[in-house]
Amino acid sequence: MLRLYHWPLDPAGRMVRLVLAEKGEPFEAVSSRPWAPELEIASIAPGAVAPALVSTHGTTPRFAASGTRAICEHLEEIRPVPSLLPDDPTERAEARRLWSWVEAGMEEVTDTLLSERVIQWTHRGRQPDSEKLRRGAHALRGRLTFLNALAEQRGNLAGRHLSLADFAAAAHLSAYDYFGDVQWEAVPDLKAWYMRIKSRPSFRPILADRLEAARPVSYYAELDF
Amino acid sequence: MLRLYHWPLDPAGRMVRLVLAEKGEPFEAVSSRPWAPELEIASIAPGAVAPALVSTHGTTPRFAASGTRAICEHLEEIRPVPSLLPDDPTERAEARRLWSWVEAGMEEVTDTLLSERVIQWTHRGRQPDSEKLRRGAHALRGRLTFLNALAEQRGNLAGRHLSLADFAAAAHLSAYDYFGDVQWEAVPDLKAWYMRIKSRPSFRPILADRLEAARPVSYYAELDF
Repeated sequence: MLRLYHWPLDPAGRMVRLVLAEKGEPFEAVSSRPWAPELEIASIAPGAVAPALVSTHGTTPRFAASGTRAICEHLEEIRPVPSLLPDDPTERAEARRLWSWVEAGMEEVTDTLLSERVIQWTHRGRQPDSEKLRRGAHALRGRLTFLNALAEQRGNLAGRHLSLADFAAAAHLSAYDYFGDVQWEAVPDLKAWYMRIKSRPSFRPILADRLEAARPVSYYAELDF
Repeated sequence: MLRLYHWPLDPAGRMVRLVLAEKGEPFEAVSSRPWAPELEIASIAPGAVAPALVSTHGTTPRFAASGTRAICEHLEEIRPVPSLLPDDPTERAEARRLWSWVEAGMEEVTDTLLSERVIQWTHRGRQPDSEKLRRGAHALRGRLTFLNALAEQRGNLAGRHLSLADFAAAAHLSAYDYFGDVQWEAVPDLKAWYMRIKSRPSFRPILADRLEAARPVSYYAELDF
């Protein structure tokens, strides 16, 4: 059995949950905040934080992988079917390039917009930092425009087939969407792409997430929004 | 034949050059600044920047991969020998985790300390931003301490064998070392590790790099420093 340490609104944890579900791999989930080291993970792999995957076969928990790159490549290797990377070497490279682009490009949005929303809800009464919200929203608009062009030209982000690049992007956008921060009207092709990916069975647990302190926007879990 | 677009002091480009050399893969190098899109790359893959690998077999250049994650995984797949990832799945995951940790953790150092040094040398007369230098040096000290503990416990960063994690770290440190910014005395085990990796034939072209405007520190290319 696999145990996944993750925090529900963390885009990295969401990507791993999507990939585990796509591969039909059951797991036990343990809530762990990526900004606070978890003793069990750290004792197995120094400096590792959520998302982290631990194998609980046998008597002592054994480290499997931590971080989206290590976990998703690991799952792709040990559970190659269904594959979430194309067969063709050039297309695989393109999927990994965009996966990497999504993670690097969205970091600024997560660090400003998403963090501020989470702090705002978990520390009631605290005024949000409007400068951070503004910067995050601006960065997100740029990223959405780029992703929309890819969805328009290719159907999915890295090509015709769904890949880890799509799950990385959907994981990030779903977290921002919880607070209503994605302006879907401006990016119709990306919206159509997100409607498709959101309808997949692997997405259901993500749409069922509820932060204790904060309810999502009304259309968060709606498949036709 | 492969063509690599890279900028000599960019840690990402250095990692790719090391991996290509380790795998005995010849390539033609074209200088390209990662902060300025290169027309040829962008026309093949939207938004791609250096480091980028293009295959020049046949009549039209064909995109192979861009970014360290896509390029190094691609090379690992098409040229599996010598392998730069361990065979064991858990050890592979650990190597990828630390590779990812190096790239994420060193980003702050590159954006402050290294960028400031490069600007300082290429725009003569401009005073360096001492606050940025200070922040970069502080971040680097923390990263070095962590890497030193890994080198002490494991020999190499992810375990006993050299892996992509080591080449990622060495690529970053070699760029900072060009300007003398690595305080090796404080991290003796990491220094011993770097001396070993610096002695590899794949490192020679890196040590021969010279920025037109800036000479490296005296011991930059010395194997026993």
